[in-house]
Amino acid sequence: MSNIAGSTHDEYKMGKLQVIEKKFHFGFRVFYNLFRLFPLLYSNTWLTLSLTALTIAASVGNEIVNYKTGVIPGKFYAALVERDEPKFWHIFWVASLCYLGLCLLIALMNFFSWCLYIQQRKNLVQCLHKIYYTNNFYYQLNGVDDHGIDNPDQRITQDADKLTKLLGTSIIPTVLLSPFIISYYGVKVWTTSGGWGFGMIVAYFAFGVIVNRILIGPLTPWAARVEKAEGDFRYKHVSVRTNAEESAFFKSAEFEHVYSNLSFDALFKRLFVFMCWKFPSQFFQSFFDYYGACMSYILQLFPLFVFHMYDNYKPGELINQISNNAFFFIYLINCFTRLTDLAMNLAELGGYIMRVSEFVDNGKLYEAGVDNDAFRRNSDPSAKTSGDENLIEAEHLSFGPPTNSNIRIIENLTFNLPRNKTMLITGDSGIGKTSLMRVIADLWPHQGNLRRFYEKPDAYFLPQRPYFPVGRLSLKQQLMFPAMGDVEKIGGNDEEIVRILHELKLGHLLAIVGNLTDSVDFEWQETLSPGEQQRLCFARMLLAEPTIVFLDESTCNVDEGIENSMYEMLRKRSITYITVGHRKSLRSHHDFELRIPSSTSFLFHEIHNQKF
Amino acid sequence: MSNIAGSTHDEYKMGKLQVIEKKFHFGFRVFYNLFRLFPLLYSNTWLTLSLTALTIAASVGNEIVNYKTGVIPGKFYAALVERDEPKFWHIFWVASLCYLGLCLLIALMNFFSWCLYIQQRKNLVQCLHKIYYTNNFYYQLNGVDDHGIDNPDQRITQDADKLTKLLGTSIIPTVLLSPFIISYYGVKVWTTSGGWGFGMIVAYFAFGVIVNRILIGPLTPWAARVEKAEGDFRYKHVSVRTNAEESAFFKSAEFEHVYSNLSFDALFKRLFVFMCWKFPSQFFQSFFDYYGACMSYILQLFPLFVFHMYDNYKPGELINQISNNAFFFIYLINCFTRLTDLAMNLAELGGYIMRVSEFVDNGKLYEAGVDNDAFRRNSDPSAKTSGDENLIEAEHLSFGPPTNSNIRIIENLTFNLPRNKTMLITGDSGIGKTSLMRVIADLWPHQGNLRRFYEKPDAYFLPQRPYFPVGRLSLKQQLMFPAMGDVEKIGGNDEEIVRILHELKLGHLLAIVGNLTDSVDFEWQETLSPGEQQRLCFARMLLAEPTIVFLDESTCNVDEGIENSMYEMLRKRSITYITVGHRKSLRSHHDFELRIPSSTSFLFHEIHNQKF
Repeated sequence: MSNIAGSTHDEYKMGKLQVIEKKFHFGFRVFYNLFRLFPLLYSNTWLTLSLTALTIAASVGNEIVNYKTGVIPGKFYAALVERDEPKFWHIFWVASLCYLGLCLLIALMNFFSWCLYIQQRKNLVQCLHKIYYTNNFYYQLNGVDDHGIDNPDQRITQDADKLTKLLGTSIIPTVLLSPFIISYYGVKVWTTSGGWGFGMIVAYFAFGVIVNRILIGPLTPWAARVEKAEGDFRYKHVSVRTNAEESAFFKSAEFEHVYSNLSFDALFKRLFVFMCWKFPSQFFQSFFDYYGACMSYILQLFPLFVFHMYDNYKPGELINQISNNAFFFIYLINCFTRLTDLAMNLAELGGYIMRVSEFVDNGKLYEAGVDNDAFRRNSDPSAKTSGDENLIEAEHLSFGPPTNSNIRIIENLTFNLPRNKTMLITGDSGIGKTSLMRVIADLWPHQGNLRRFYEKPDAYFLPQRPYFPVGRLSLKQQLMFPAMGDVEKIGGNDEEIVRILHELKLGHLLAIVGNLTDSVDFEWQETLSPGEQQRLCFARMLLAEPTIVFLDESTCNVDEGIENSMYEMLRKRSITYITVGHRKSLRSHHDFELRIPSSTSFLFHEIHNQKF
Repeated sequence: MSNIAGSTHDEYKMGKLQVIEKKFHFGFRVFYNLFRLFPLLYSNTWLTLSLTALTIAASVGNEIVNYKTGVIPGKFYAALVERDEPKFWHIFWVASLCYLGLCLLIALMNFFSWCLYIQQRKNLVQCLHKIYYTNNFYYQLNGVDDHGIDNPDQRITQDADKLTKLLGTSIIPTVLLSPFIISYYGVKVWTTSGGWGFGMIVAYFAFGVIVNRILIGPLTPWAARVEKAEGDFRYKHVSVRTNAEESAFFKSAEFEHVYSNLSFDALFKRLFVFMCWKFPSQFFQSFFDYYGACMSYILQLFPLFVFHMYDNYKPGELINQISNNAFFFIYLINCFTRLTDLAMNLAELGGYIMRVSEFVDNGKLYEAGVDNDAFRRNSDPSAKTSGDENLIEAEHLSFGPPTNSNIRIIENLTFNLPRNKTMLITGDSGIGKTSLMRVIADLWPHQGNLRRFYEKPDAYFLPQRPYFPVGRLSLKQQLMFPAMGDVEKIGGNDEEIVRILHELKLGHLLAIVGNLTDSVDFEWQETLSPGEQQRLCFARMLLAEPTIVFLDESTCNVDEGIENSMYEMLRKRSITYITVGHRKSLRSHHDFELRIPSSTSFLFHEIHNQKF
């Protein structure tokens, strides 16, 4: 039974990091998802809208000035041919001013669109952070069930970056500008050549859109696949970076070498396939653009030879009509081809949109579920008042992985831990001791009754693996974690800190950092030995001044002498402790033992030893 | 003394991950470093050169066809004005063919340059991998001293990507093509307008280069700074991903939220400054381009009004001369402005080049140092034969961090461990027990004598933290690690594997993976509990069939029952073991104890206990 429970326990955990390579398709959903991402992209509404407006304004100005300056080379030419030096200099100064203005507008347009990109990225990243860190969704994704969300780090950093960069610097300016340009030249075309010219150009554009839609279809899933492979490749390297010493002890440099290459090869193949799919769309793209230029002449076949509209025109009138037609046709077609040129960008963007919105959707789904699921039902404040002689009462407590309510890791556990008494939880590794901690910490849901007669903030959980957040934080920041803020606001009594560090034989850390509040130039988790990390986490716990602590194998990397003084420190502070551990020496520090030999049988008894 | 030694020990380690923000400058060094990277970019020489040649060929073809098709719209125009329908259709078919060819060339040019990019990236990544994994350089960088190489993972993945993408898709085609185009139009300009025209265009270009050089100067260091901040931001997210459960236990979601935002804010500020520096160069860039178009007329002022070279020309001749001049001037100037347009790309590229070549240089420096440093001197094969009664002889052994030869973690350690005897190494955490392991494993150099009377491949080191390489490897691959290869080649007796797993109470893992050789869809290190990981590493060690093992706290996460059977398994296989550990229960399994109370005092004695 224990074995089965053990295996199901692990089976559940295996559920995470599922390699579901979802088939993303480019289509309506991409636009729909993009539309739903807009509130996130514009979360800092006024600033972002202003930047959008400035980008558009600079683009419009650029279009107008560019149109006006188009005649300047011709004027130069005329002045030269006429040998008119004063006229030449006049044109020269006008041109210089015009070009100065034009280039300023171009630079401003680029500057604003770049600002738009970084502002949208900031908005998006902050919204994603909010989703990620609300209701422990980040724990859910990385520690419980990833819902098929591979590489969340990649999505928040790279994918959000590429999405907003494409959107801000190329898609938004073009798309927002085109209605104005199309209307302007559309009216011009209509008035010079009638509805048929406008209609045919729109038909040409529609044809281009349809062909593009077919050709770029496979690009979106392949862009997403490339991103996933980039994420995996990066993750391989981060893993090597983090485990470099272990890997060196295993003499596995060659292994890492081969597998890093393999990881890149997987990426390489996807990049190549992506390019192969890109080839036909690239070809069609430029063909559509070049043919567009010809179109302005080809279109004139119809009035001239088919409809015979110009049959009665004199040669001079004809030349005038044809060149007028051509001029406006070219501008209108150019405007449409600029839109279709975006197709490939859109296909790539589609991949990022799908990856980011998948993340957002799962976050919202999760958040909606939290309100009415077991997580909330657990924390029943009324329970606290009902008893006073016990600290924890468990009655027919059963729990299993949050992902599968049919699996039970522990079934029908019943025990009452009296107030001010300490408890040791023992049992084979993998049997579910840490899962019991998760249940007590409300990270996992449960069935049956679990009554905790303490205030939630008074309880402190010391997880098995020490954790020191990265960011080259000062010693004090690490000790006061997860408290935040400046040196003044973070709290903590410096004398107390120094005393505790010396008691835990961590005095040498003080010598190294120089000052408690100075930011250091290393990462704590990469630098300290496991025993030092364990003691530093313990010091952090003491400084948080809890009244009850849950210790998950918190002394396994220190010797028994320090272990004894660590428990002594807890007793001196009258902290009630509940320990998960294997070591025999731990028994002497505890009043009760909860032994879990299998998932359905439990032994709860008082420990009789002559301690203290 | 112990305290000082302890602190110096740690001080050394603090040396790694130094945040030296090197000032990269754009200048000669960028080109020099790029030049030195070429052997890496072209390491797969023939394939990469062929792709380069194909890219160039497609670009040249594109230039020529583009030049030829320039007259087509004019011909259409003429045919329309002349109302000549057959001529129109003739031009139509010729134009269609020309554009088909042209667009095919454009698509091919893009395709080949993309292939060039991914091939160069492959070459570069493989070379970087080779440097990284040769002589344990990856351990040196991540575990000993990073030489100021921040985020090596970022450099190998992102920076190499961006470097080759810029180089392959925009810089190489333009730079390699320009000599041909410049020569062609240079000769044309020279013949139509004489040396003065050519000279002035070159002077205009030289002016552009100088101004660009000044304006893009700050872009290179800022591009590098942006990359570093991108790396830090990503690293923060990877760290949260890896430590999600610990972070959830610490209730630190809010902390992670704030610090993730802070990490992005640092990046945001750098992105903004980068853009501010980009603004003036962007402005100058487009001004230079637009003025270039005017230049073709302005230049003609000199022969016309200053030198009075055309004073005797008839109007017809003058028009002809001026338009000829203008045509070739425009082409030549356009070719030069295409080169200066690359300036901003080059500035960005400079940042990546500096980051990648810094990595390469340090790797080469390290490799050169390895040949004649303490690492090599240690492994003296002659020593093996000189004695036979002892397994390890240490005489006045001293060592310190590889980065600072003045610091001693352990001084004057002397002990002789007899053959076939086991040893337990004890001492306060942080005193240098693991460092002694590093010395014995030749990861660190030493002074004094250390004679090991065993063949190096027979020794197996089990580091303190379990390590399971990422990549969703099968159970068998994890157990045979660091052996590599297919199911057939990897070796390992399946019956033996199953027996060992059951002995270590890991039988349930078999039920989960189904088949020993099936790739799994989770990462082992993220999924198993620490106790399970420790036992799985132990199983891996047994399957490697070493004759001597070094165990660094390898049983601290399992209970004493399993610990006993683990040591029993070692004895049954006649494996000599040397253990680093704190637990009292370990003493009963060992013959000798080496106690390290301080960095200069040692106790080596036989343990007398009635074991077995």
